[in-house]
Amino acid sequence: MNTADLGLPVDVPSTALFTDHYELTMLQAALKGGAADRRSVFEVFTRRLPEGRRYGVVAGTGRVLDAIENFRFDADVLGFLRERRVVDEPTLEWLASYRFGGAVWGYPEGEVYFPGSPILRVEGSFAECVLLETVILSILNHDSAIAAAASRMASAAGERPLIEMGARRTHELAAVAASRAAYVGGFTTTSDLAAGFRYGIPTVGTSAHAFTLLHDNERDAFQAQVDSLGRGTTLLVDTYDVTEAVRLAVEVAGPELGAVRIDSGDLLLVAHRVRQQLDELGATDTRIIVTSDLDEYAIASLAAAPVDAYGVGTQLVTGSGHPTCSMVYKLVARAESADPKAPLVPVAKKSTGGKTSIGGRKWAARRLDAYGVAEAEVIGLGAVPAELSDRQLLVELVKGGQVLAREPLDVVRDRHAAARANLPLSATQLSRGEAVIPTEYV
Amino acid sequence: MNTADLGLPVDVPSTALFTDHYELTMLQAALKGGAADRRSVFEVFTRRLPEGRRYGVVAGTGRVLDAIENFRFDADVLGFLRERRVVDEPTLEWLASYRFGGAVWGYPEGEVYFPGSPILRVEGSFAECVLLETVILSILNHDSAIAAAASRMASAAGERPLIEMGARRTHELAAVAASRAAYVGGFTTTSDLAAGFRYGIPTVGTSAHAFTLLHDNERDAFQAQVDSLGRGTTLLVDTYDVTEAVRLAVEVAGPELGAVRIDSGDLLLVAHRVRQQLDELGATDTRIIVTSDLDEYAIASLAAAPVDAYGVGTQLVTGSGHPTCSMVYKLVARAESADPKAPLVPVAKKSTGGKTSIGGRKWAARRLDAYGVAEAEVIGLGAVPAELSDRQLLVELVKGGQVLAREPLDVVRDRHAAARANLPLSATQLSRGEAVIPTEYV
Repeated sequence: MNTADLGLPVDVPSTALFTDHYELTMLQAALKGGAADRRSVFEVFTRRLPEGRRYGVVAGTGRVLDAIENFRFDADVLGFLRERRVVDEPTLEWLASYRFGGAVWGYPEGEVYFPGSPILRVEGSFAECVLLETVILSILNHDSAIAAAASRMASAAGERPLIEMGARRTHELAAVAASRAAYVGGFTTTSDLAAGFRYGIPTVGTSAHAFTLLHDNERDAFQAQVDSLGRGTTLLVDTYDVTEAVRLAVEVAGPELGAVRIDSGDLLLVAHRVRQQLDELGATDTRIIVTSDLDEYAIASLAAAPVDAYGVGTQLVTGSGHPTCSMVYKLVARAESADPKAPLVPVAKKSTGGKTSIGGRKWAARRLDAYGVAEAEVIGLGAVPAELSDRQLLVELVKGGQVLAREPLDVVRDRHAAARANLPLSATQLSRGEAVIPTEYV
Repeated sequence: MNTADLGLPVDVPSTALFTDHYELTMLQAALKGGAADRRSVFEVFTRRLPEGRRYGVVAGTGRVLDAIENFRFDADVLGFLRERRVVDEPTLEWLASYRFGGAVWGYPEGEVYFPGSPILRVEGSFAECVLLETVILSILNHDSAIAAAASRMASAAGERPLIEMGARRTHELAAVAASRAAYVGGFTTTSDLAAGFRYGIPTVGTSAHAFTLLHDNERDAFQAQVDSLGRGTTLLVDTYDVTEAVRLAVEVAGPELGAVRIDSGDLLLVAHRVRQQLDELGATDTRIIVTSDLDEYAIASLAAAPVDAYGVGTQLVTGSGHPTCSMVYKLVARAESADPKAPLVPVAKKSTGGKTSIGGRKWAARRLDAYGVAEAEVIGLGAVPAELSDRQLLVELVKGGQVLAREPLDVVRDRHAAARANLPLSATQLSRGEAVIPTEYV
């Protein structure tokens, strides 16, 4: 089963080389030394949120499931590893039949998380689990960073739609994942056609300054656009003089003009002027879209302006100052053999330089207060206290190597909105602060 | 011709959907309105360097050439565009036979650039050129940002090798491009196997803390690693106690031990202690590799420490604070028809909000002082002054749709080193400052 089962066109190549060289050398040494089969538990978590952020957003889980399912070593890849002497022949043989056969539990995609939250847990032999480290972290670190920025922007935008348009500001495939993560975080549409193709996200767009400059004058450009795309289109009105362009836009398209877009200048001031002008021209239903280097703060500052939609590019795809999370994938427990009855021994690197981790296979639950609002992220080892048993956060995602849970993106998006709404009100303050709920270890 | 001709395994799918929706609606309107065939010139440039940076690095050009060559609309893609009603049937027909047939000139990859430098120029019909905007900017904005950070780190590292190990901190395919850009900027090796496979970059790696924690004790782990990977391997010595681990490492591997890696703590202090201990143990040739959240400043601060190599992750793949450039793709001139004799008319958006551009098809040259050091980036319209004619920066990359120039990555890497060495000495100061040479318009 793959995302293709949701009816979307998809072709996921092998993900086996999105892997650090040392995962394979560790595998080789563990195979030779005899420890490769030891039953192991790895957990993904972050020691801290980006500075000033109040919550994190789990995003990319669906992509992780695809990556695990497509993690296999075909002849080309094995040939490369052989030629470059990355690992020895016994290891290559082992890799040739590699299929992850273990278990994965995790926070459902769209959930919020806090420092220490075990957002993904991978269990199986050391050998089969260690190989997945790099690609799992790549996906979760990237996608969660974008979703966190998107979520803040969506809070700031309130009911107004947000258009993701950052493809040109990031790697061409990171852009597709960024559109997906932005949608999870609350964006409405994307400019990125590949994101529409791959994930079914609605795509939008009409024209750029180049289209106006191509023509002999602005009137010709507007006329050509309206003739082709209809009166409901969005005309870009800041190539020359905004006031003249708005007048011309309504003259060409009539008051049925769908929208005007403003991409420069003092947006607060210009939006008010343009709204007044549109209303005076009878174009009272014509919307105003703004798109100039916006971030969550600029969006919030336009809350009182007559703006109908925001387009966000650079600041979205760069995580609004935090383009990656600091998620790590740590061995937290292992047995002395592959025997399922052999006890798991908690393990952890000794702290130096602040890189602490807590050993042991963990559960996590979100405790609510009397009003049903999140009060603490509770993380523990062993049995889950009865009062938290129905507030557990980890769900089973992969069992015996089989992906159990795949979800349409709208389900994930709705889950995030619900999770955010369930946090204390200060969660959506844009000002810097601490995590909005504490992490408690029991 | 493709990168595959350099002997590297490569499979580049169509890049046509790495495109903003509005490129296609502009195309539709221009086809219907009759302006689509107008001969047009688009230029890629940036209005400013990231704050405090003294030069930029052109990276991604080779990937741009691949993207242009693979920009075509197959049946799946056309079916998607039809079903989602992105464009009308005449436009779909036009797209079905799309192949870029124009010209591309650009700064050779690895060159440095400054505000206003026309690092890429795309010429052809409006229709064929406008479609390429998004993917060209995605590649250049991402790759150049990483290469610029890499270049600063390489300056700081001097003769010491740099290992790129940031795959886990960025999107899994952005990571591959980041390895490539890092290599251009002066890195030596990468941890990313996909970058080795795709671009032939040397890959390295040995083990992580998980490998030590997997075993019953550090001795077992070291022994297993040395047994499998040989005495020349790199042992990670900071899982528990560094002093004890170094002692154990030399005991297990002997003084032939290749290297030890330190991934936490006060690296300056620890490196000195470890060096002294290794020397006392007779392991005078054992190298010290450090890898803990390094950036160019941390690398520079270790210049006097007995460190033999640096591994850099997060700060490399996030551009050391600047994960994207602000490159734009602007229509700067167009004719009134497709006729090659029709004069090109310079065009530019009128300035509002600082988004100025200068119209017209430009040349660029780097003027040298009497000592042969770069003195100014000179940009002009029309004829190139005789004294600058052999200092021109733009080279022909694509002619009549055919890629002319493809280069091994080592050539690009060497070019960057030479270009950087030819800048005034203050170029490689890490402190914030202005562009190291001024941009002059003539």
